[in-house]
Amino acid sequence: MAKSKYEYVKEFETDDRMLRNVYVLVRIDGKGFHKFSQTHDFAKPNDVRGINLMNHAARCVMHELDDIVLAFGESDEYSFLFRKSTDLYQRREAKIVSTVVSLFTSAYVYYWNDYFTDLKRPLYPPVFDGRAVLYPSEVEVKDYFAWRQADTHINNLFNTSFWALVEEGGLTPKAAEARLCGTDSKDKNEMLFTEFNTNYSKLPAMYRKGSVLLREQIPKDADKDAIIPTLPETLPGSKSAKVVPVLDTAITESGLQSGPDPISESV
Amino acid sequence: MAKSKYEYVKEFETDDRMLRNVYVLVRIDGKGFHKFSQTHDFAKPNDVRGINLMNHAARCVMHELDDIVLAFGESDEYSFLFRKSTDLYQRREAKIVSTVVSLFTSAYVYYWNDYFTDLKRPLYPPVFDGRAVLYPSEVEVKDYFAWRQADTHINNLFNTSFWALVEEGGLTPKAAEARLCGTDSKDKNEMLFTEFNTNYSKLPAMYRKGSVLLREQIPKDADKDAIIPTLPETLPGSKSAKVVPVLDTAITESGLQSGPDPISESV
Amino acid sequence: MAKSKYEYVKEFETDDRMLRNVYVLVRIDGKGFHKFSQTHDFAKPNDVRGINLMNHAARCVMHELDDIVLAFGESDEYSFLFRKSTDLYQRREAKIVSTVVSLFTSAYVYYWNDYFTDLKRPLYPPVFDGRAVLYPSEVEVKDYFAWRQADTHINNLFNTSFWALVEEGGLTPKAAEARLCGTDSKDKNEMLFTEFNTNYSKLPAMYRKGSVLLREQIPKDADKDAIIPTLPETLPGSKSAKVVPVLDTAITESGLQSGPDPISESV
Amino acid sequence: MAKSKYEYVKEFETDDRMLRNVYVLVRIDGKGFHKFSQTHDFAKPNDVRGINLMNHAARCVMHELDDIVLAFGESDEYSFLFRKSTDLYQRREAKIVSTVVSLFTSAYVYYWNDYFTDLKRPLYPPVFDGRAVLYPSEVEVKDYFAWRQADTHINNLFNTSFWALVEEGGLTPKAAEARLCGTDSKDKNEMLFTEFNTNYSKLPAMYRKGSVLLREQIPKDADKDAIIPTLPETLPGSKSAKVVPVLDTAITESGLQSGPDPISESV
Repeated sequence: MAKSKYEYVKEFETDDRMLRNVYVLVRIDGKGFHKFSQTHDFAKPNDVRGINLMNHAARCVMHELDDIVLAFGESDEYSFLFRKSTDLYQRREAKIVSTVVSLFTSAYVYYWNDYFTDLKRPLYPPVFDGRAVLYPSEVEVKDYFAWRQADTHINNLFNTSFWALVEEGGLTPKAAEARLCGTDSKDKNEMLFTEFNTNYSKLPAMYRKGSVLLREQIPKDADKDAIIPTLPETLPGSKSAKVVPVLDTAITESGLQSGPDPISESV
Repeated sequence: MAKSKYEYVKEFETDDRMLRNVYVLVRIDGKGFHKFSQTHDFAKPNDVRGINLMNHAARCVMHELDDIVLAFGESDEYSFLFRKSTDLYQRREAKIVSTVVSLFTSAYVYYWNDYFTDLKRPLYPPVFDGRAVLYPSEVEVKDYFAWRQADTHINNLFNTSFWALVEEGGLTPKAAEARLCGTDSKDKNEMLFTEFNTNYSKLPAMYRKGSVLLREQIPKDADKDAIIPTLPETLPGSKSAKVVPVLDTAITESGLQSGPDPISESV
Repeated sequence: MAKSKYEYVKEFETDDRMLRNVYVLVRIDGKGFHKFSQTHDFAKPNDVRGINLMNHAARCVMHELDDIVLAFGESDEYSFLFRKSTDLYQRREAKIVSTVVSLFTSAYVYYWNDYFTDLKRPLYPPVFDGRAVLYPSEVEVKDYFAWRQADTHINNLFNTSFWALVEEGGLTPKAAEARLCGTDSKDKNEMLFTEFNTNYSKLPAMYRKGSVLLREQIPKDADKDAIIPTLPETLPGSKSAKVVPVLDTAITESGLQSGPDPISESV
Repeated sequence: MAKSKYEYVKEFETDDRMLRNVYVLVRIDGKGFHKFSQTHDFAKPNDVRGINLMNHAARCVMHELDDIVLAFGESDEYSFLFRKSTDLYQRREAKIVSTVVSLFTSAYVYYWNDYFTDLKRPLYPPVFDGRAVLYPSEVEVKDYFAWRQADTHINNLFNTSFWALVEEGGLTPKAAEARLCGTDSKDKNEMLFTEFNTNYSKLPAMYRKGSVLLREQIPKDADKDAIIPTLPETLPGSKSAKVVPVLDTAITESGLQSGPDPISESV
């Protein structure tokens, strides 16, 4: 039969199973989201619709893939942490990465209109890419999330200051950039407070610290404004109905500052 | 600054650039599309709306990624062939695979309503996965596509026979399966002709041979019914306006039976 | 200049640096050592000259490569454990594996005549191959060595019984094999004791438990017969003069039964 | 039994089979051979004993591994080209690289005294490392060897000039280096001819062009001084008795300048 004659081409496929018993971290990034956010008039410095849609898409990923124990999102990126012992798709790298990226993208387009209610669908299909990174120990995983959260803080403080200068202060983007050049965090906080009457530390935690997705429990000290709008607990097509809240929490070298420690507790 | 302290975690990322000067083949597959097609009442054995949506999504991928020289689709899978010399994303595997999968998924959800006009969006977000395979020579690439097309033929002849027995012949699925057990291609052709008045070779080429996407030229002997419904030549968000027709053509060991030879001609 | 024109071929080299912060285990194996040991009339079941030469070659490897914290040898194989934090050759896999194999092979041929004193050099050049395996945690590393030591025990008890039956009992190899078929450890111990007046547990530890190489300290309870013949502490060409003793020790799930714990203590 | 309990550690071994149907090139390099050649008083700029020993060791590798079709050596490095279709060790990378390196090292130590007749064995065990590179097409393979041969030429012309200035001209190494700084090939040829009465192009081809090892035929125009001293055609322990001559030949983009073309002819 014709089949057998050609099937040798399958032998060119390689085995891409990842090392066992190490954490698998999949990070996705929006492609060309600077342009995408401009085209869709995202509010500056943060568009709550866009953030909530990202969080919703990430929740869909966690609903489908039970071995993800923690996710963290900021701007147009999201990081998903799989438990060390996961045997999802026998740990095949391309399968895991492509499934996470496809799930996320699909949900982003699918739920678009639930957040951007005045536009049936985006003006063109958005695209994300992804990659996997292996981390052997808790230390690196916690430092990874601490790194992403530090990045969120730095970017958001800059963006908040920049757009205050431009939108409220009437500066040109160029002038705003020049004004911020060489300033440190303290300078920016001071400027926001004295010139724009903004207490940076009172801005929504989700802007300042990014979004953390966990399974099941809501820690008692969770900041209310950090919780994404309630969604139907059973998403269409999802396998489980677990609640996945978003917390206001710092991720430090000793893990999540409040609540459970999904990194240390997962096996 | 906090950043530098944690940035060592980036060193755990590995270099996944693929060998140079070999063909890169990315194949995507629908996840759980048996259930997906049932949930959405896809016509059996072929749903023209579903096939056209797959082809449309694949065209979007080719519009975005100029180094794809040929694509082939059947059922819920699509294969994309990159030219040997491509340096897209420095040939990083995860980046290439995840981008193709995300583009395809995004377009599939985005254009859903253009083909399934009575349903605003699917009942739940569809998901695809993907993988890359490297092929050193034309021989393997042509055999790869010949393999997928032989697979299309075998599956479609079986499905056509099966659903004729069930939908027109009134057999139960179990009885239909039993009836087909042990039959070869000739038997099935004969049965379709004598019992269901169906000349298999006159069925649309797209069903029998899958869909081939090429750049630019439409070979003069292309079967009309193999061409997907005309689409706006410039897709929103795409970089180029190249025409990407779908041909009725066999892919054999000597390449495409008719028209240009994008495999041999690409570098 | 001619050089630059061709240097693009270097771009085909791939980056094979291994994941950081996991244990690197390099295991080497003799190629065709069944034939090699027969050709050189190795004593059966154990040739003390051959074992000592293996141990000597392994010591040379440890003398050269400071990041090896533990080595274990049995029969014609040797395993070398690198500390998790090693940055030797930037953790490039081929470089590390090939260097270990070359060092070992070179020393084996070089020191041959010191152990096989009646033969200037082997009758033909011996060959070893090697591979690297990554282990994320102490648990797997300890189980790895426990696995190799269990293997040593099983093989040595079988071989001791087999050669007793052949050399002292006068059985043919075939008959000896038949006699041992289906016996367990207790049966073999019993047979050695009653028929050949051999108390298996009193045989040299090096035969029963393989050879363990550690750095620096000799634990106080080390069995004397487990220590390899004294060698000049500074090997020619070696970088350091550390003493590398061989112990009589069991490797269990909790590490080395006696003495220091180089696995847990290394970083 | 104890064995099964621990055998899970085998699952951490990864599959390192290399892509099929591409050339496999293994290159080995001496480690610390600057010091090694000084310690053993190698003649400068070329030590014929050292080169012949390298060639002998490389011949042993080719005798053992039938799928090597061509080898090229210069200084302390040697490159071995495997046919595209080789299935040696199922193309496992670590196995192939480590075997080549071990074979070479073993033979180098083993045959040392046949070339360095006044020294029973080297003063310490020499070490080589190795790596594999994949090349998809003849073009890259030929350019690879052309690259190594261009390197040989450049280095040898420099070294010949440098040692003429030092050993015959009485300059210090520093002064010789200064004298050569900024000179091109023509300048060096001229200097050798006018100051040291040396016609560079008449020096042994093996020095100027490196050593090429082929299987079986000696092309009729082979330069006599390029052939290594006759060796017993059947090496101890080797599987075959094929003659492996060394040629005086240039390797250009169109392959070997004279004689057969093992690159194009191998499959």
